[in-house]
Amino acid sequence: MHMYDLIMKKRNGGHLSEEEIRYMVKGFTQGEIPDYQMAAMLMAIYYKGMNQEETLALTMEMAYSGEFMDLSAIHGVKVDKHSTGGVGDKATLVVGPMVAACGVPVAKMSGRGLGHTGGTIDKLESLEGFRTALGEEEFIHQVNNIHMALASQTVNLAPADKKIYALRDVTATVDSIPLIASSIMSKKLASGADAIVLDVKVGSGAFMKEEKSAIALAQEMIRIGIGAGRDMVAVITDMDEPLGYAVGNALEVKEAIETLDGGGSKDLLELSYVLGSYMLLKAKRTESLEEARAMLEEAVESKRALKKFKEFVKSQGGSLECVENTSKFPKPSIVMDVLADSSGFVEKINASQVGRVAMILGGGRATKESQLDLKVGVVLHKKVGDKVEKEDCIATLYANDLEQLKEAKELLEKSYSFSIRPTSKNILIKWIVTKNGARKA
Amino acid sequence: MHMYDLIMKKRNGGHLSEEEIRYMVKGFTQGEIPDYQMAAMLMAIYYKGMNQEETLALTMEMAYSGEFMDLSAIHGVKVDKHSTGGVGDKATLVVGPMVAACGVPVAKMSGRGLGHTGGTIDKLESLEGFRTALGEEEFIHQVNNIHMALASQTVNLAPADKKIYALRDVTATVDSIPLIASSIMSKKLASGADAIVLDVKVGSGAFMKEEKSAIALAQEMIRIGIGAGRDMVAVITDMDEPLGYAVGNALEVKEAIETLDGGGSKDLLELSYVLGSYMLLKAKRTESLEEARAMLEEAVESKRALKKFKEFVKSQGGSLECVENTSKFPKPSIVMDVLADSSGFVEKINASQVGRVAMILGGGRATKESQLDLKVGVVLHKKVGDKVEKEDCIATLYANDLEQLKEAKELLEKSYSFSIRPTSKNILIKWIVTKNGARKA
Repeated sequence: MHMYDLIMKKRNGGHLSEEEIRYMVKGFTQGEIPDYQMAAMLMAIYYKGMNQEETLALTMEMAYSGEFMDLSAIHGVKVDKHSTGGVGDKATLVVGPMVAACGVPVAKMSGRGLGHTGGTIDKLESLEGFRTALGEEEFIHQVNNIHMALASQTVNLAPADKKIYALRDVTATVDSIPLIASSIMSKKLASGADAIVLDVKVGSGAFMKEEKSAIALAQEMIRIGIGAGRDMVAVITDMDEPLGYAVGNALEVKEAIETLDGGGSKDLLELSYVLGSYMLLKAKRTESLEEARAMLEEAVESKRALKKFKEFVKSQGGSLECVENTSKFPKPSIVMDVLADSSGFVEKINASQVGRVAMILGGGRATKESQLDLKVGVVLHKKVGDKVEKEDCIATLYANDLEQLKEAKELLEKSYSFSIRPTSKNILIKWIVTKNGARKA
Repeated sequence: MHMYDLIMKKRNGGHLSEEEIRYMVKGFTQGEIPDYQMAAMLMAIYYKGMNQEETLALTMEMAYSGEFMDLSAIHGVKVDKHSTGGVGDKATLVVGPMVAACGVPVAKMSGRGLGHTGGTIDKLESLEGFRTALGEEEFIHQVNNIHMALASQTVNLAPADKKIYALRDVTATVDSIPLIASSIMSKKLASGADAIVLDVKVGSGAFMKEEKSAIALAQEMIRIGIGAGRDMVAVITDMDEPLGYAVGNALEVKEAIETLDGGGSKDLLELSYVLGSYMLLKAKRTESLEEARAMLEEAVESKRALKKFKEFVKSQGGSLECVENTSKFPKPSIVMDVLADSSGFVEKINASQVGRVAMILGGGRATKESQLDLKVGVVLHKKVGDKVEKEDCIATLYANDLEQLKEAKELLEKSYSFSIRPTSKNILIKWIVTKNGARKA
């Protein structure tokens, strides 16, 4: 078998066999197939796609390239929640404690990742002393004990995906449905959950700009999960503006805590209820979505969810000082309000540009080696549909460098579009996708 | 400027500016842009193409990446002939001496190249003692003296093309019109001819399988040449079966000599008359194609063309023994006749598969490091339209290894398709393309 022939086959619109995909993934991971041939293949896949069999084969091959997490020692049905990624997405920090407070185990592995902010574990490191490097035993023990643990990868999950993703990232081949689906699902399958609730983002701040392609991505992932014997559901949610108000590592943790405490962001809370309800359902904690939601609302209103969050932070060595009093989160050296220069209604907020704002301020990683500045970022005060008077503060920037701040401010202002007539809010929860199809939420 | 952004732009169907193409070619040639990014770009170009401005910019950038040949010391108009490549194409060995015998300078640089057989200089090396490494001064002196010289590249022509071609060759991105056109024309422009006669092959043994795309490729190259101030014409010719009968290095030289001597292949002779006529016309040796053809026919019939070939071989140190008596060409250890197993008429000969036959026998290079076996190859005895009786010899294989022979024989038999009803010959000369458009030949 020769990689050249496989590239030619895919280039001409052919389908790769399971054996050919195995040869390709193994060869590339072991360094026998050079980067440049894989890059040409990825671009051919970008244009020609992969059918269901190919995507499943690619997923399984990448999943089996590394170790599998063994979660069998954890009591109950293990449900994982995964977001395809968006700006200001701190939902895990709200859903996790909520669901754990209802007695369902939350055993989550998380990567650091590239992007406008760090991953969930980067964010949590803004709490002093918080440890993300848990051993497998400690991890399982904690989940059995308090129902929640969140760790950086304890085992080598899907190394083939890691290597292929790094190449996609520099060859403009990230936003391909079969490549995204197989990348996400290879890690999810290897991390051992029995059921997976997917949050597939759609809009200006997501890979998928159109609902149609978001649904297609969801269906592809569900098909793969079902094929591998997992229980699957996906929720298609808005990423046409950032989720909640805060974008930036510590700022997002602060918003999550405030949301668990009954303040914070209504959208973030609503999304967490929806995702959490499906998690309770999949964990067989209850039979109906309505009951699940009532349980979660009770957990938030009684502050049991917030208490669970504190328990979790404490168990992983984090300081509770800022959790108890969010005004104590350390601030960077510059805090600047951005004011509206005319009146109107917010019509659009380009989420991807707001993400870039956080990135410019130092809140995200441009390369794997970048150091994160956990304190910086942006807090929006106006969202789509809101009325704005001239001189109103539309957002606050948190920065440590004047040059960066200047660039960030200009970009933030460009991210907002205003209308003189009233505008309507974005619809947050758009579609529910199961193995039986997609239905409007 | 970042290569990532250029890949994304091309991937999405955008056009690269002259400046962006310069950045890309320079960066890649100097090793600053990695192979894998260039590979992704080439695949994106394969799908999205390049417009005329992009193709011209790419050509010029690659041409100027190395030295330019200075042919000004050669008297008269310098005309080059270039074939896009096909199976059994030894036309240069016939056209060259013909045209030189009519007093037109033939100053040809040739590469070794990859493929089913070697390049023209590889083929000539089957004549004992033949030297292809001429110095620039010796090269020019010989052209002024006997009107013909053929050398491996004396100067570093278009190194950027060399590096990009090597990558295309292993990433299945060779057969793209803008990439083929810019690759050929960058070398042609740098090699200094005033006029260029292109032989664009079409059919099963050529890059271009359809006449439409062959014409498009010809027009692209003509446009580039005219843009760079060269006089251009292209002839679209058949490559749906091999040219002539012989495929293999020494075997092709033998056929060329026999053709100059009045025997050999009628197709090869006809093609040489057509290409040669345009060369005489472009060299301003005569005003009419009819007169040009008459001059060439006279040169062949009087044996002055054959004499010119001998003069040329002798001047470059080659032995005349096999030229004087072609039965003296050394043979490999095994010669095997392939017999027809039923009667009928030849309907098709898959030229690309016949090329593979020569390759399997060791006549071509699979990688740059491969050693050529100059003696091996195949001589066809039946071409499309010919009647075949059961047990007739359809081809003779020349081999040095039994295993290779077995594989080659099977493939050769598969290359032929027969019909029980009479079939017609292929049309050799299909279209003439000038800057004013394409017309049926």
